[in-house]
Amino acid sequence: MSRYTIGVDFGTLSGRAVVVRVEDGAEVGAAVHEYAHGVIERTLPATGQQLRPDWALQDPDDYIDVLRTAVPEALEVAGIDPADVIGIATDFTACTVLPALADGTPLCRVLEDRPHAYPKLWKHHAAQPQADRISDLAHERGEPWIARYGGRISSEWQFAKALQVLEEDPEVYARTERWIEAADWIIWQLCGRETRNACTAGYKGIFQDGQYPDKAYLEALNPAFADFAETRLAHPLSALGERAGDLTEQAAAWTGLPAGIAVAVGNVDAHVTSPAAQAITPGQMLAVMGTSTCHIMNGEALAPVPGICGVVDGGILAGLYGYEAGQSGVGDIFGWFVEQGVPPEIHEQARADGLSVHDFLSRQAAAQPAGGHGLMALDWHNGNRSVLVDHHLSGVIIGQTLATRPFEIYKALVEATAFGTRKIIESFEQAGVPVTEFVAAGGLKRNTLVMQIYADVLRRPLSVATSDQAPALGSAIHAAVAAGAYPDVATAAATMGRVEKAVFEPDPAAADVYDRLYAEYSVLHDYFGRGENKVLHRLRDLRNEALS
Amino acid sequence: MSRYTIGVDFGTLSGRAVVVRVEDGAEVGAAVHEYAHGVIERTLPATGQQLRPDWALQDPDDYIDVLRTAVPEALEVAGIDPADVIGIATDFTACTVLPALADGTPLCRVLEDRPHAYPKLWKHHAAQPQADRISDLAHERGEPWIARYGGRISSEWQFAKALQVLEEDPEVYARTERWIEAADWIIWQLCGRETRNACTAGYKGIFQDGQYPDKAYLEALNPAFADFAETRLAHPLSALGERAGDLTEQAAAWTGLPAGIAVAVGNVDAHVTSPAAQAITPGQMLAVMGTSTCHIMNGEALAPVPGICGVVDGGILAGLYGYEAGQSGVGDIFGWFVEQGVPPEIHEQARADGLSVHDFLSRQAAAQPAGGHGLMALDWHNGNRSVLVDHHLSGVIIGQTLATRPFEIYKALVEATAFGTRKIIESFEQAGVPVTEFVAAGGLKRNTLVMQIYADVLRRPLSVATSDQAPALGSAIHAAVAAGAYPDVATAAATMGRVEKAVFEPDPAAADVYDRLYAEYSVLHDYFGRGENKVLHRLRDLRNEALS
Repeated sequence: MSRYTIGVDFGTLSGRAVVVRVEDGAEVGAAVHEYAHGVIERTLPATGQQLRPDWALQDPDDYIDVLRTAVPEALEVAGIDPADVIGIATDFTACTVLPALADGTPLCRVLEDRPHAYPKLWKHHAAQPQADRISDLAHERGEPWIARYGGRISSEWQFAKALQVLEEDPEVYARTERWIEAADWIIWQLCGRETRNACTAGYKGIFQDGQYPDKAYLEALNPAFADFAETRLAHPLSALGERAGDLTEQAAAWTGLPAGIAVAVGNVDAHVTSPAAQAITPGQMLAVMGTSTCHIMNGEALAPVPGICGVVDGGILAGLYGYEAGQSGVGDIFGWFVEQGVPPEIHEQARADGLSVHDFLSRQAAAQPAGGHGLMALDWHNGNRSVLVDHHLSGVIIGQTLATRPFEIYKALVEATAFGTRKIIESFEQAGVPVTEFVAAGGLKRNTLVMQIYADVLRRPLSVATSDQAPALGSAIHAAVAAGAYPDVATAAATMGRVEKAVFEPDPAAADVYDRLYAEYSVLHDYFGRGENKVLHRLRDLRNEALS
Repeated sequence: MSRYTIGVDFGTLSGRAVVVRVEDGAEVGAAVHEYAHGVIERTLPATGQQLRPDWALQDPDDYIDVLRTAVPEALEVAGIDPADVIGIATDFTACTVLPALADGTPLCRVLEDRPHAYPKLWKHHAAQPQADRISDLAHERGEPWIARYGGRISSEWQFAKALQVLEEDPEVYARTERWIEAADWIIWQLCGRETRNACTAGYKGIFQDGQYPDKAYLEALNPAFADFAETRLAHPLSALGERAGDLTEQAAAWTGLPAGIAVAVGNVDAHVTSPAAQAITPGQMLAVMGTSTCHIMNGEALAPVPGICGVVDGGILAGLYGYEAGQSGVGDIFGWFVEQGVPPEIHEQARADGLSVHDFLSRQAAAQPAGGHGLMALDWHNGNRSVLVDHHLSGVIIGQTLATRPFEIYKALVEATAFGTRKIIESFEQAGVPVTEFVAAGGLKRNTLVMQIYADVLRRPLSVATSDQAPALGSAIHAAVAAGAYPDVATAAATMGRVEKAVFEPDPAAADVYDRLYAEYSVLHDYFGRGENKVLHRLRDLRNEALS
């Protein structure tokens, strides 16, 4: 008699439910539900009101619809008896955050005509002025926590977004009783009680060493913001894998699951992937590689690694320091190039060969020896998250001749992201946090060109997460722990997670060439990225001036 | 009763004949003849023998065919009586050079199976090792002439190509009685006697201060080369516009022109354009803008302008110092981008609007204010001729984001070539050779985006040559002088040349932005081009190594 858990992965445009067998991690059924409202970027559906640039909202009803549709569908696909399901867990994009009443009601259900009442999606970037002030003031006052975040607090995170609400719509702010990550809000809907997970509190909520930023600091930011943390955030934190509560009757009705089963505390899509890929031992770096890349790694000790996104006690696994770093453009850069920079002949040839343009260019690129294109790129088309923490940087490519072909540029862009990853690994190692294994997950793991180049550039074997829906599997692992089927996440991961070891081995000859190219990359990285020539900033300023 | 002259412009793939009225320069008829053999790059037609990379030969019969077909056709189109034609002149690509017997017979007509017996087209680049030795030895020995050529003798020029023949096929070299520019060889065919024009002797033949490089220098280069200049080149030079001789009976039979009319001495396509565009006064810089750009300007005095291609006494107009500079990639770079970097949607939209892709991108680019793309490029995709004289440089583009669109890259590339032209102008002015007017000719004069950007970047009004076949018109002007219809080229040009003054005026606001962008260009130009970071050379070396 097998038992099962449900993992639900809430993405940017859809939610995916997966039914997983507890005894061995087999994924026996899955279903996806697209959000009816998708990303709300142009106009507010309730009123037609225009939103300003850089806004990105969502409608929380879409999240509930995932529970109502994807979960029952996944159960049906699996063909199992729902009575055999012992727990459910979720993971979410982050920082996706919303204002709510004290009972968990989203404020947008009460104030439907107010944009600031809606959940702000992770990629809502309109709080940059607030984020800048948060960072600058922290440095000015010597706040100890700013070093944990590579020296910059992102405009995507909880404090910047909340301060934007306060300063742009004080009435919405006044009505906000809870300021809560969607990752935690969805758990509230499932089990009927508020919890706060250690992961988002640490990485997105500036919770460090047992506390949020203090009142004096918040008051200096804005007097009306002084009590923000104590009134809207404060709540005991829960460790990942803990049981948040029991599935309510209402949630049971939505999902078709038995009421009373375990609901695990909330989690984040990238971080929850670690146990699914069995990448939880200190030194195992998990790279979730998609449009951007998130680097997740546990460490025994707290070390100041320059340029990381954050280090959080228990941020990935209770009892260890969770490190997060990232590259803000990876697959997005390849996608941009394929969409904007590839001529009709290549599209036609790819079609004739039955390949995507990505696969066609990858095949051509794989046939050329390393260094054969004479190109070098910097992968900053979407800014640089780690290790420069500078979102106002932009892309660079050098070495083009009249003989340069599209696949060569494509390859140079792939290599640039691999060099960027090498910079991150070196930053960890130079800070005394060794990286002993590199494990790839996410959509790009299917591109063998990308994987081989990473193996060559990093001069290490690449392990690859087996599951194609690793975040949902990671959630299901947490659900199994919350349900008591395993004593902890590490134990559950050992049985339920899946990884293939050393799928890509470095080619020594290519690695030698890439060592030479990486030396060139490093020189340009520092020249353009560390202030020797701030031309990328000046070009951006000039652009903004010209277009304003 | 009007009189006429014929100008014949020998290009890379075809020759064009134009019939011009002497009294006012009206172009009354024209015809083009494509060379049957085009550029011989892969195999020798006579034997099927494979040629090595970087070779580019021609067949001299093709030049005669232009005289036989294009000239009579142009006369027919013009509908004039050939008896009213008083002279003929030609201009040629350069350095296109061939070995001949003492009577002018091309050596390839005697040794049909020997590649080295054929004319080497200007873009034959296989003599680079010889060119490097020529330059290096000149510096070593402190030869005074090397400074007149920006410090480097090109692999395209007479000495490098001849030395390659000597060292690769000594028998062909031994049989070579005359080593002659095609520009002079075609005149020999028209008037039956050898002449040497001051232009190619100076720019391509290292003739300076009344002499070729001396015997001791040539002997040091290769003992068997010691007598090269005195045996194969030496011949009194003729000033441009001089009468080389009278049209022979044979040439009259080819062309349908009266025997005995004036034949002018040979000339070069770029240089001969100056009188056609009335750009002959010192300070008037003519830019012949096509796949590459040639900058031609007369000066009163001999000044050491860094990074020019050459300065030659009487090289453009007898009695003045003719300066030549150049950009090795201009229209070629735009063409490369349109062919290799523009996605299908843009091609489709251009087609729907009835525009070429160039014109479509130009229209989009013109609508965006200067600086609006946030990009900066270096225009070295085909190396840098002036002012860095480094053919191993390559292209650079910085500032790309995920929002960057093709027209923005196109515009940045156009701007980069304009910045490159500004560098050249500044090099002249800093050397005490003022540039008082900028006159555009060549195919790119029709692209109003390009012209306006040049006006803005240079912060000067742009004059534009009126004729669309300005080189042939320039030849016809020289023919009129050779025939005695005008006392000199300047006088003839004042009547027969055509230029529109100040067609494009600089926009002060755009010019202000371009001043700021040019400052950025200059920093990157020196960083990548003057040795601070030799990464472009290293990437090229690595490429050659990887592909070898």
